[in-house]
Amino acid sequence: MKPGDWSLLVDFYELTMAQCYFKYKKDTRATFDLFVRDIPVCRSYLVASGIHDCLAYIRSLCFDKEALAYLKSLKIFSSDFLAYLKIFKFSGDVWAMPEGEIFFADEPVIRITAPIIEAQIIESFLLNTVNLQTMIASKASRVVQASQGKGVYDFSLRRTHGNDAGLKVSRASYLAGFNGTSNVLAGKMYNIPLSGTMAHSFVMSFSDEPSAFSAYSEVFPDRSILLVDTYDSEQGIKNAILTAKNLKATGHSLIGIRLDSGNIEALSRIARSLFDAAGLPDVKVFASGNLDEYRICELAKRKAPIDNFGVGTHMGVSIDAPVLDIIYKISEVTDACGNFLPTMKLSRNKITTPGRKQVYRIKNKQGEFSKDILALESEKVSGRPLLIKMIEHGTSVYTEPLLKESREYCAATLSLFPDSIKKIDTRHVFTVKFSRGLQSSMSALIKQFSRRRRYG
Amino acid sequence: MKPGDWSLLVDFYELTMAQCYFKYKKDTRATFDLFVRDIPVCRSYLVASGIHDCLAYIRSLCFDKEALAYLKSLKIFSSDFLAYLKIFKFSGDVWAMPEGEIFFADEPVIRITAPIIEAQIIESFLLNTVNLQTMIASKASRVVQASQGKGVYDFSLRRTHGNDAGLKVSRASYLAGFNGTSNVLAGKMYNIPLSGTMAHSFVMSFSDEPSAFSAYSEVFPDRSILLVDTYDSEQGIKNAILTAKNLKATGHSLIGIRLDSGNIEALSRIARSLFDAAGLPDVKVFASGNLDEYRICELAKRKAPIDNFGVGTHMGVSIDAPVLDIIYKISEVTDACGNFLPTMKLSRNKITTPGRKQVYRIKNKQGEFSKDILALESEKVSGRPLLIKMIEHGTSVYTEPLLKESREYCAATLSLFPDSIKKIDTRHVFTVKFSRGLQSSMSALIKQFSRRRRYG
Repeated sequence: MKPGDWSLLVDFYELTMAQCYFKYKKDTRATFDLFVRDIPVCRSYLVASGIHDCLAYIRSLCFDKEALAYLKSLKIFSSDFLAYLKIFKFSGDVWAMPEGEIFFADEPVIRITAPIIEAQIIESFLLNTVNLQTMIASKASRVVQASQGKGVYDFSLRRTHGNDAGLKVSRASYLAGFNGTSNVLAGKMYNIPLSGTMAHSFVMSFSDEPSAFSAYSEVFPDRSILLVDTYDSEQGIKNAILTAKNLKATGHSLIGIRLDSGNIEALSRIARSLFDAAGLPDVKVFASGNLDEYRICELAKRKAPIDNFGVGTHMGVSIDAPVLDIIYKISEVTDACGNFLPTMKLSRNKITTPGRKQVYRIKNKQGEFSKDILALESEKVSGRPLLIKMIEHGTSVYTEPLLKESREYCAATLSLFPDSIKKIDTRHVFTVKFSRGLQSSMSALIKQFSRRRRYG
Repeated sequence: MKPGDWSLLVDFYELTMAQCYFKYKKDTRATFDLFVRDIPVCRSYLVASGIHDCLAYIRSLCFDKEALAYLKSLKIFSSDFLAYLKIFKFSGDVWAMPEGEIFFADEPVIRITAPIIEAQIIESFLLNTVNLQTMIASKASRVVQASQGKGVYDFSLRRTHGNDAGLKVSRASYLAGFNGTSNVLAGKMYNIPLSGTMAHSFVMSFSDEPSAFSAYSEVFPDRSILLVDTYDSEQGIKNAILTAKNLKATGHSLIGIRLDSGNIEALSRIARSLFDAAGLPDVKVFASGNLDEYRICELAKRKAPIDNFGVGTHMGVSIDAPVLDIIYKISEVTDACGNFLPTMKLSRNKITTPGRKQVYRIKNKQGEFSKDILALESEKVSGRPLLIKMIEHGTSVYTEPLLKESREYCAATLSLFPDSIKKIDTRHVFTVKFSRGLQSSMSALIKQFSRRRRYG
């Protein structure tokens, strides 16, 4: 992403509001929280992802000539506001959770303190970015839990929502513990191992299945995974055994076969027993075809002899929760003297929390995470603070971990949570307490507002 | 999109298969169909979208130095294959439905005839592109039907799956009849009217709501839409009336208010009656907040006085069907003599149709579309053929209509279908018949296969 390329990827109202702020509130500063209001019912936790893309965007955001010319052509922006945009540079502070952090409803995953005009303009991009990547990492993490240590690979490119999602799904699923992706560009960009087998069309382009298998295995004698279900899966398995034997005879070995339709469990047992009987115990069984954490969990419970899972559509669009209830809300704003005053939204069922906040994670005596506390930053709370200062006065003060380091962090963090939140079928609500200070601040603001309504 | 940028946005197996084709089938040609196997249960028709992006990709696809260096680094591609990729250029034919065409299950929306290696490499991108854009256009079309001529605006950027989806959702929804978008970059790229109001944070950054309204309306005296639900919607409406009167007194006018929470229907009636009573009948009521075609249909049925709808999340991720069962399947392949032979996939429940096909649309005597016929291209069928030749021998032979022309085409086409397929609540299955020639070809191939299995 080059600076300027995405400056206009913004909701129109961010810019019209910005023009108002430019006129009335040039010196006003504010704090905004980006958080998820409610976790989807089919999730017990979320995995923070998309943070690094947000940091890169915030650091590099500027409005180039072309963007400014377009905005001018709309004939609603003043020349002094456009001149301001021309020299726009984010000058505020960004606190955020690290990539791969586990978090819950109401907890700010990014906290911005900046001139209100700057904090407002970045809203759309931040929401768009964290929504997609966190949603996918959270879904993918469940698939990883379900697979119980077996390999899981992202095969979702063809069904993700566009090319950006294709890349980000590969990255987010790898962060959450996937072992690789079929997406070559993601492999290149993020240094993720590539995985792939063959398509039905490949088999069909040959006069018969054995010819297709033998052609492929001649080109890739040590990396072939043969797709066996184009015509008849059982026959396909037998054809694959012939190929495996031929490879073995020449000092090579078949990696495996892929089952993509029919009764995967039954077929995996047939495949395993036929390969074992043929003296080919090392040939692996891959399964794909509308797999998700539920299906994988079931196959694992029934001890289906499957070694690796290719997971596509269901994970790639987070099909049971294709959106997060993610929002970006103002929590404090400076008054005329420059003092920050807490603020909150009071619309029915859409109440937000006021003030500059930190999230603290508390362990029990056994060293397991037992609860989080959402507190005002000014309060003293024991426990590990989850929000880290990443940008200060517009400058990066954070060394971004490598993707594989974040992946390890994610796995290590999750291992410290009780098993209950990692269950696939039942939802566990992890305790997130509001600190005493936060509660008082909320009560005070609600009181203040009702007084204003009564006498206002 | 610059040539080369997206060449690696491809499933790994496309490239490994391509290397096999390069070795064994350099001269083999094949036809592939891109189609939807089953329409989601909550849709009666699909709106073709993403075609122009596919054409641009196909025309410009090439592998630049950086891409080739990465592929080489994987140490599995041969140097002659990489040399082939270096001079890769698509040389085949592309037939496709125009943007905005209405289509159904089993009907090819894109048909590729090319050297099999070329046809295979483009698979992932084509599926990814048509899946997203067609899925969204189809969902958006339902929202347009439900709104019965009222304005509908795309507000989905913050919840779409990434930035590419953000742009494509704006485009696809406009194609399907939306009136505008909040996405500024989409407005610039696709020449779509922009729309926007204000955020709760804007209101909250002022000491009270009237100050926020008056500040905004001073900057945009003829373009203000005031968000009234930050604290209390009824009070918000009353505050907006004051602003509207102030604007009127200075020769300007308030465009409208936006309701974003609470009982939208009841609030719209309150707003309408208060504005009318205040002598402000021209102030419009906008509604937003988790709207979709069902909710809009209900509001329209109950004659809620709402003039425009802002539609976000539900449309932007096609929440009730966030994926299409879209596939890309080989339908014919040349033999050793270069003659095309039909082929089909026979896996259980995943049967495909063989041969080079065309889709014909048939009208009844009243001029209404009554059925489609899926036929072999060699057959003579009356009715309008839907697939148009767009690329021939790698060169464009098609003048792409402007987006607004495609938008008109979509609306005009849909108007010729029976009302039954446009109903929101009930699914209507439009008749798609397989021609006699196609049926015979399928029977012959199934017979041939079972014979091969018996004696093979």
